[in-house]
Amino acid sequence: MSGTNGTTTANSANGSSNNGGNFRSNPYQPVGDFLSNVGSFKIIESTLREGEQFANAYFDTETKIKIAKALDAFGVDYIELTSPAASEQSRRDCEAICKLGLKAKILTHVRCDMRDAKLAVETGVDGLDVVIGTSSFLREHSHGKDMAYIEKTAIEVIEYIKSKGLEVRFSSEDSFRSDLVDLLSLYRAVDKVGVNRVGIADTVGCASPRQVYDLVRTLRGIVSCDIETHFHDDTGCSIANAFCALEAGATHIDTSVLGIGERNGITPLGGLLARMVVTSPDYVKSKYKLHMLKEIEDMVAEAVEVNTPFNNPITGFCAFTHKAGIHAKAILNNPSTYEILNPADFGLTRYVHFASRLTGWNAVKTRVGQLGLVMTDDQVKEVTAKIKALADVRPIAIDDADSIIRSFHLTLHEQPAGTQASAPVEVAQ
Amino acid sequence: MSGTNGTTTANSANGSSNNGGNFRSNPYQPVGDFLSNVGSFKIIESTLREGEQFANAYFDTETKIKIAKALDAFGVDYIELTSPAASEQSRRDCEAICKLGLKAKILTHVRCDMRDAKLAVETGVDGLDVVIGTSSFLREHSHGKDMAYIEKTAIEVIEYIKSKGLEVRFSSEDSFRSDLVDLLSLYRAVDKVGVNRVGIADTVGCASPRQVYDLVRTLRGIVSCDIETHFHDDTGCSIANAFCALEAGATHIDTSVLGIGERNGITPLGGLLARMVVTSPDYVKSKYKLHMLKEIEDMVAEAVEVNTPFNNPITGFCAFTHKAGIHAKAILNNPSTYEILNPADFGLTRYVHFASRLTGWNAVKTRVGQLGLVMTDDQVKEVTAKIKALADVRPIAIDDADSIIRSFHLTLHEQPAGTQASAPVEVAQ
Repeated sequence: MSGTNGTTTANSANGSSNNGGNFRSNPYQPVGDFLSNVGSFKIIESTLREGEQFANAYFDTETKIKIAKALDAFGVDYIELTSPAASEQSRRDCEAICKLGLKAKILTHVRCDMRDAKLAVETGVDGLDVVIGTSSFLREHSHGKDMAYIEKTAIEVIEYIKSKGLEVRFSSEDSFRSDLVDLLSLYRAVDKVGVNRVGIADTVGCASPRQVYDLVRTLRGIVSCDIETHFHDDTGCSIANAFCALEAGATHIDTSVLGIGERNGITPLGGLLARMVVTSPDYVKSKYKLHMLKEIEDMVAEAVEVNTPFNNPITGFCAFTHKAGIHAKAILNNPSTYEILNPADFGLTRYVHFASRLTGWNAVKTRVGQLGLVMTDDQVKEVTAKIKALADVRPIAIDDADSIIRSFHLTLHEQPAGTQASAPVEVAQ
Repeated sequence: MSGTNGTTTANSANGSSNNGGNFRSNPYQPVGDFLSNVGSFKIIESTLREGEQFANAYFDTETKIKIAKALDAFGVDYIELTSPAASEQSRRDCEAICKLGLKAKILTHVRCDMRDAKLAVETGVDGLDVVIGTSSFLREHSHGKDMAYIEKTAIEVIEYIKSKGLEVRFSSEDSFRSDLVDLLSLYRAVDKVGVNRVGIADTVGCASPRQVYDLVRTLRGIVSCDIETHFHDDTGCSIANAFCALEAGATHIDTSVLGIGERNGITPLGGLLARMVVTSPDYVKSKYKLHMLKEIEDMVAEAVEVNTPFNNPITGFCAFTHKAGIHAKAILNNPSTYEILNPADFGLTRYVHFASRLTGWNAVKTRVGQLGLVMTDDQVKEVTAKIKALADVRPIAIDDADSIIRSFHLTLHEQPAGTQASAPVEVAQ
């Protein structure tokens, strides 16, 4: 593990050779980090499993199929479905989705129980995500089993699933409140019998980024299989925790569209990709159809009857809106000044707000040009003062600001001949 | 810096002796970490500055005063206001808020410019947050100044503000895309002339948690003053980044209510406290009036005409809703199993969802008890199957599930005498 001491890895926080142009002049430019998978991760999309546990979710068969097809077209690696043991319709829907012939592998998520596993392998899925609670909380208050029983059952279930030729993941629930030695011992045992992935799950959303890094890094030294991670968002760290897990060597991240899931949900697909496209633009842009993100989010938001949060990464209505004068000026010169994400990558556009008291004359100058009007810089400054004065008294709309600009422009042409106006300014869009 | 190598600090990710009961049996139980301020941070609440840069924000004087008073009552340490140089009304509002006699210190946020600083000190504020862009992006495309000019101006402005007896912070913008040596050299220079705080700002939202930890930790070794941090949320890491900054020795975190600000905003006040109350419950609960959080969020949401996001930490409508049968069962036995946050700390309540195909008999048993009905466990299992069967066909409401339970209960009493029903079950609420 030499070369991965704290200082070196902290200095290579982005850890990928796929980093884009924006970081070229960054002192934190990543150096090689053999642990990091920020440039080679896989997504296990769980809208149709974790997402079904969202308070408002009821997906009928048609909706499930529509969502599965959209996620497949978007490019996710895996689609995870509710356990066929949950209900008769869940079982039939699972079979129906398996028959769609999608490129994404189909998984179902089952308790570590032979009956559930047998039911699941009959559905035609490519693999099973097996889960059991290992924290003392869950061992006491949920299933009541001890670690020896858990290990014995886990190995039986894993060997059964493998005997059927299917992929299998074994995960604890509530990994961050489980005993570390118990956890590593269990994972080493299932790794030895050939599990495809072990899972680290922050079921209650308590984990912090450096804690995640440390646990995944430790586990990375214990098992040779892949490492899947699952982060709830109760304390707002689900995207950051997923990122740190990848830095520490995790290979798979669980997501759901808009993050829907139990309580306030898990790592959102769009939010994770906002993070990853900044770090590994080539990998993310070549693998995922980012232009489809808004359409998929809208589809799921409609299905579960919620609004996309106003502040959602990428697709929130104001994610690419710039307002303060100092920001607007720089954005108009070069969008990279205040934008780490390029809206065009997602089929979206930026908007420079100029109808407020915080506006500056550079933003107004751009608007003057968009209106096809001609003014000198001094004239633009004069009309900017008029806009700010009105916006200081009440909220104003674009129409209001445009009216002030047009009205001011008219007065200019009523002035005596000889007043010079400059040529139209060239503006960044 | 011995004792702060990567391994030790990573193992003490929560870094505070204030950690609560939930972590007692955690292998990641924090050990002493002299760098960390997770148990002693201060909040600079910027809803009335950064928040005013949110696309939808227009705060009239009355609204600003109402928000300032609410934040003060909530317990924030500082309230930051828009620069008086932004507009005439901004200047008057700044004066009005200074005259309220709040416990929180009042700051205003100004460009690193002597004219702005002079205007600001006249308003009666307790301190100035001075800012200038230091990244090559901003130096080229915004103000066009070189580092020598920046340092000279910074020292002049800082010395002027200090000469007026006011507190002063000096911050770069876009710190994570600034040259590290330039940045450290500038901050050392302003620290020497007695600045109260230096600021690290992720203006574009590009920073990742371990990168934040590393930069703040490095800076902590260079300056003796306080360190303020400001994180935008473009890549969904603003809460995690604030947390890692505190772990690395930052002292102050900028927040806004619901995270409103430029683009999709900054570290939200509620989200930060969700994170911090898990790590440092005693400090957070004794310092902030957590019961006021929802009221303040509702006030700001109304003022800027947005809905609280469905998945908002703590106050999202489903933040304490439990749905899957396996979750519901454990939650009913002991809420800590699937809850790291206690809704009662925020004056809120939990809800165990039982009207879905994912429900389990433990959740239904609780509902049977709430309805004052008496059934054996086998009978509860039977009625659970009926609820799941209907919920498998269409979305069902609580009323639907209750009707099924009541109807089933009636049939029980139509059965021949001798059928035994158990005593009412005792349930966790």
